[in-house]
Amino acid sequence: MSDTTTHTPTPETAPHGQRGPVEHERRQQIMEAAHSHFKTYGYAKTTVGDIAKTIGLSPAYVYKFFESKQAIGETVVREALTTLTDELTLIARSEKPAATRLRQIFRTVAERTAGMCFADRKIFDLAVVACDEKWQVITEYLAYLSDLVRAIVVAGREAAEFERKTPIAETTAAILMTLEMFARPTFLEQKLDDPVGQAEAMANLVLRSLAP
Amino acid sequence: MSDTTTHTPTPETAPHGQRGPVEHERRQQIMEAAHSHFKTYGYAKTTVGDIAKTIGLSPAYVYKFFESKQAIGETVVREALTTLTDELTLIARSEKPAATRLRQIFRTVAERTAGMCFADRKIFDLAVVACDEKWQVITEYLAYLSDLVRAIVVAGREAAEFERKTPIAETTAAILMTLEMFARPTFLEQKLDDPVGQAEAMANLVLRSLAP
Repeated sequence: MSDTTTHTPTPETAPHGQRGPVEHERRQQIMEAAHSHFKTYGYAKTTVGDIAKTIGLSPAYVYKFFESKQAIGETVVREALTTLTDELTLIARSEKPAATRLRQIFRTVAERTAGMCFADRKIFDLAVVACDEKWQVITEYLAYLSDLVRAIVVAGREAAEFERKTPIAETTAAILMTLEMFARPTFLEQKLDDPVGQAEAMANLVLRSLAP
Repeated sequence: MSDTTTHTPTPETAPHGQRGPVEHERRQQIMEAAHSHFKTYGYAKTTVGDIAKTIGLSPAYVYKFFESKQAIGETVVREALTTLTDELTLIARSEKPAATRLRQIFRTVAERTAGMCFADRKIFDLAVVACDEKWQVITEYLAYLSDLVRAIVVAGREAAEFERKTPIAETTAAILMTLEMFARPTFLEQKLDDPVGQAEAMANLVLRSLAP
């Protein structure tokens, strides 16, 4: 044990790409301005200067909170995804059979992703940039989904609901791919006539593959 | 029966978006010039005028063969896909068990799509435009894949290799979605560390779902 304290930012005080002290309200104000700018003009056409100007700040001041436009974009995407992951975590932790939980995960991902990305073309574009450029927030989200799927498969195996022969890593990876389709705006866009129905059909296929 | 002949183009003499007489060599020359332009400058930055100029023709003359740049692009994509669909048709018609054929379809689609789209960024971009704008050639390709999957599922059911409880339309649609992942460049791009391994894992999941 050491009594020296360091000033290295910890994940709690300064998430990836965010600088300086966590002044919650100011940060929130910048994010709201950014969100509204992204929605109106699109992520690509918005600069940090534009965002700063809207709320009467200098770009330099905004950079005290976010190291780049991407860092602001990541935070906007993270906020949107947090609402979804909170909902998914609740489903995963419920007492229902693993099959029911897995089915609900598929439906919820399809429904919420469609709701977030297709209500507004500019927000869709932001989501596409985030996926194409493999932003950290997307990598984290996919890792979260992978853990979620794995936990449900493990629970289903323990309850003898699911088969146990296939290596758990292979099963999880393959199911994650089928779920990812409904989590990725560019793929989901092709299924927009009925995203929830398609997610249901996919969940059924996955559940048949899991039969003992 | 009528003895009147009409001059309405039939699909045989004038495929979608292509005009005028089928002068094979001239058309081929235009397509080669287009392909090379798309490869060097990208589809978006190429004009029909650019293509015409390369081979010493007037744009008006090129328009006698193709009604638009998109029609040229569709033909370039169709040629590339024909090589792949010929290979897939051979696999589907082989005497091997349905499970083996389905596994080979997944592997071949992943391998060839990766080969076509990722050797060259500009060709990848053309494929993305074709998918995003839902070109007719893509719709036809997906319909082809759907028929292919359905035929193998039917054969597998008849041979008692596959379960028969799930409605055939639902099974086919869900399997098509899993195959589509490996046929779509934007999705496959996320899996580029090991497209064939991932296709194998997906085929395994699908085959588990088909177990009687």
